[in-house]
Amino acid sequence: MATTRLPSAGFSITIRIGVTADASAIGRLTTCVGESGAIVTALDVVDSDPNTVVVDLTCDTADSAHADQVVKALVDLPGVDVRKVSDRTFLLHLGGKIEVSPKVALRTRDELSRAYTPGVARVCLAIAENPDDARRLTIKRNTVAVVTDGSAVLGLGNIGPAASLPVMEGKAALFKRFGGVDAWPVVLDTQDPDEIVAIVKAIAPAYGGINLEDIAAPRCFEIESRLRDLLDIPVFHDDQHGTAICVLAALTNALRVVGKRLADVRVVVSGAGAAGTAIMKLLLRQGVGDIIAYDRQGALHPGLPDLNPAWRWLAENTNRDGYAGDLRGAVRGADVFIGVSAPNLLTGDDIATMAPGSIVFALANPDPEVDPREARKHAAVVATGRSDQPNQINNVLAFPGVFRGMLDAHAEQFTEEMAIAAARAIADVVGEEKINPTVIVPSVFDARVAPAVAAAVRAAAQAPARPPAADPGPTDLPEKAAEAAAPTPPLAS
Amino acid sequence: MATTRLPSAGFSITIRIGVTADASAIGRLTTCVGESGAIVTALDVVDSDPNTVVVDLTCDTADSAHADQVVKALVDLPGVDVRKVSDRTFLLHLGGKIEVSPKVALRTRDELSRAYTPGVARVCLAIAENPDDARRLTIKRNTVAVVTDGSAVLGLGNIGPAASLPVMEGKAALFKRFGGVDAWPVVLDTQDPDEIVAIVKAIAPAYGGINLEDIAAPRCFEIESRLRDLLDIPVFHDDQHGTAICVLAALTNALRVVGKRLADVRVVVSGAGAAGTAIMKLLLRQGVGDIIAYDRQGALHPGLPDLNPAWRWLAENTNRDGYAGDLRGAVRGADVFIGVSAPNLLTGDDIATMAPGSIVFALANPDPEVDPREARKHAAVVATGRSDQPNQINNVLAFPGVFRGMLDAHAEQFTEEMAIAAARAIADVVGEEKINPTVIVPSVFDARVAPAVAAAVRAAAQAPARPPAADPGPTDLPEKAAEAAAPTPPLAS
Repeated sequence: MATTRLPSAGFSITIRIGVTADASAIGRLTTCVGESGAIVTALDVVDSDPNTVVVDLTCDTADSAHADQVVKALVDLPGVDVRKVSDRTFLLHLGGKIEVSPKVALRTRDELSRAYTPGVARVCLAIAENPDDARRLTIKRNTVAVVTDGSAVLGLGNIGPAASLPVMEGKAALFKRFGGVDAWPVVLDTQDPDEIVAIVKAIAPAYGGINLEDIAAPRCFEIESRLRDLLDIPVFHDDQHGTAICVLAALTNALRVVGKRLADVRVVVSGAGAAGTAIMKLLLRQGVGDIIAYDRQGALHPGLPDLNPAWRWLAENTNRDGYAGDLRGAVRGADVFIGVSAPNLLTGDDIATMAPGSIVFALANPDPEVDPREARKHAAVVATGRSDQPNQINNVLAFPGVFRGMLDAHAEQFTEEMAIAAARAIADVVGEEKINPTVIVPSVFDARVAPAVAAAVRAAAQAPARPPAADPGPTDLPEKAAEAAAPTPPLAS
Repeated sequence: MATTRLPSAGFSITIRIGVTADASAIGRLTTCVGESGAIVTALDVVDSDPNTVVVDLTCDTADSAHADQVVKALVDLPGVDVRKVSDRTFLLHLGGKIEVSPKVALRTRDELSRAYTPGVARVCLAIAENPDDARRLTIKRNTVAVVTDGSAVLGLGNIGPAASLPVMEGKAALFKRFGGVDAWPVVLDTQDPDEIVAIVKAIAPAYGGINLEDIAAPRCFEIESRLRDLLDIPVFHDDQHGTAICVLAALTNALRVVGKRLADVRVVVSGAGAAGTAIMKLLLRQGVGDIIAYDRQGALHPGLPDLNPAWRWLAENTNRDGYAGDLRGAVRGADVFIGVSAPNLLTGDDIATMAPGSIVFALANPDPEVDPREARKHAAVVATGRSDQPNQINNVLAFPGVFRGMLDAHAEQFTEEMAIAAARAIADVVGEEKINPTVIVPSVFDARVAPAVAAAVRAAAQAPARPPAADPGPTDLPEKAAEAAAPTPPLAS
């Protein structure tokens, strides 16, 4: 059974309507909208004369088709003149969602002389002599590139760079709103890993970190791993690491609810793409012993033909009993189901076959792997990616604070220690005494989250490093961060 | 004779000083600073007790060495304790000069739903279906990339991408301040033309225009020409086109002062790099018949060995009498000298040999080709790039308005018509009745300039196109701009 889409603010429209001015005219409008399944959120009178009244009626609808139905129902009402339909989401995106603002005044000749020529020349020379000064005297100190090739955007697939731009702008807006981080969209008109790596390396001098976004698996792994080796700034792939951090945070608190330990649970992960792979790697490193990875061709095991390197690694490091059956069979008796895949793969009856005290994270958006209302009848804890359900697992809990912390620490690499510290910080914001089956993660608007994550990541950046999760191997990390943080006086005092 | 560097705000320092609190203590400080050649611009008491007073003394100095001398002179004064020296230019650059700001509120769940998921998905799909919508629904509408490889930054030479970042940030700040344009620094860690072209092509989907900046000649010509062919957004090289527009504007008004016509004058251009080449191409297209191009190896003529393509073109299209002597000989009898080269190549005596009513634009920064005070003794009109002399020729007169106009017209290419229209608009802002030998260009702070330039460029974008100056050849330009400007309603009304 598919989850019903409910009216939401993401599909809010404003309809300008002229009606004959009788006592029940407005009532007929709102009744019509209500009967069409939309929710009236505002009604403003725009104009009137003795015979007619013109109103702006704003309502939440479920999706574009539903919005069209609502408008058509109004058009069909007698005595009603639909003059204009504005889509509030489109209005909000007009001209883009971010802007570049000067932080310096440029009102006078003197201000111009300091911010630009001739004064700026000395600042350039200082950086030429001491490249680390770029972290102090330029935007590099606080700026992150949000890089995509448009190949796996939201649930929309390979829509290309231009069409991905609204998402990257939104991401940049969230970076500033929640982490005080300046982020800039880099949407690339190429999907060739060699070119993407070369481009990101070339543009890196202006940035203090790279956030890869919505790049399809498996090439996202190769791109991330190569950039990690090439650059002296952290490379973070939000679809992998951001999701893994949030899932680990939520799972930590969900296990507190049911009184189980990571080391003891059996986990089924549906979806072995960027998110699923990163989640599994992080869980393995945190001591989960029994994981089955499930993707379109079934449970991953070493006997499958044509495994790409990422899947081969998973096949060799999960599924210790060599399970090769279907997804329903895999969840039978499992403690945890984590879905980062596709809608409606399981039913409530399937969830009923899981172990007692089962945990279900059905994160496919907008329609989860299992209807959360059905899952809740059988599982102890249910989480989704939806904002209209309890326990929304949303990456905005992680990435703003993670980059805030890495930038402040002048970190040169994103490490597994940072991921684990960030997950713990998110989980701890809820507070032991407030945890219950419907509250395992904080609200995205909880102002404590980003500072807590940033502090945890900063501390992890200064601790001795272990190899990163996504690319096991030795590393000689952030000794230089402390040096870089010490400011150099421009003139001796 | 070298031009003396005068104290300027670009080298302003603030010195915190404790002195014994006697009646003449402060006077001794200011006298000492004045005798060191600096100019006191502010004196603020910070703290005091019965015996001492602590002040912040701010003064303009000529350069870093001079600032050090001023501080040393104060340290050597008896009863004076120099506690701290702050360089105001460096303070202003701390953390960078631009930031990325959200234009949308993200306070509530509804606002988040419209700016990001799920609402943003519809905006992405609209652009995927109709790519032109990117100019309407994303930052592409108002955003320009400021691209450099750091190879020819100000007068500093090849200082690389990180050290060029303060200049590109300053440029971005000027773009917003004067043109309302969002500009973003793209500083590239490569100086290979093929790579630069590939990178700019790949990042272009987010931008409505490309501003190339401080890329060394001759590869700047190749990069610009190839990008112009590849992209459907305007490519403008400020060192070429911005400078050429401003020089043409200034020359137009200078010729009004001396009562000569473009077609009749003999022009000597010192410096056949990016700026000089673009200036000469624009002057040739405007009907100047007699130009001598001068660079390090002498006057350009077809007999010179090893000419690169740009110089070969100049050699074949200038110097109609085949002059091969030195620069001094070239200016003898000339009407106009334009220097975009190196300091102190000529003396006042050389200027005295020019034709009556001579015009001297000595634009090398910070030290011009000839001391403007000496030149003014013999020439009718003198202009420089310096802000402390009359007639400052500054590219900020052109680029903000040019891009404002191109973005508003949804222009797909920068054309010679736009350059000529922009130059005329700048010249006309001064107004026929206000022109005199010391006022041939408007002030950079004249608020009429950018709107006038933008309007002229918009009009030129809508007129039938001729081939661009830098790349002569047929073109089938901006028919599409008008289409692109027509908004598509997101929902039928």
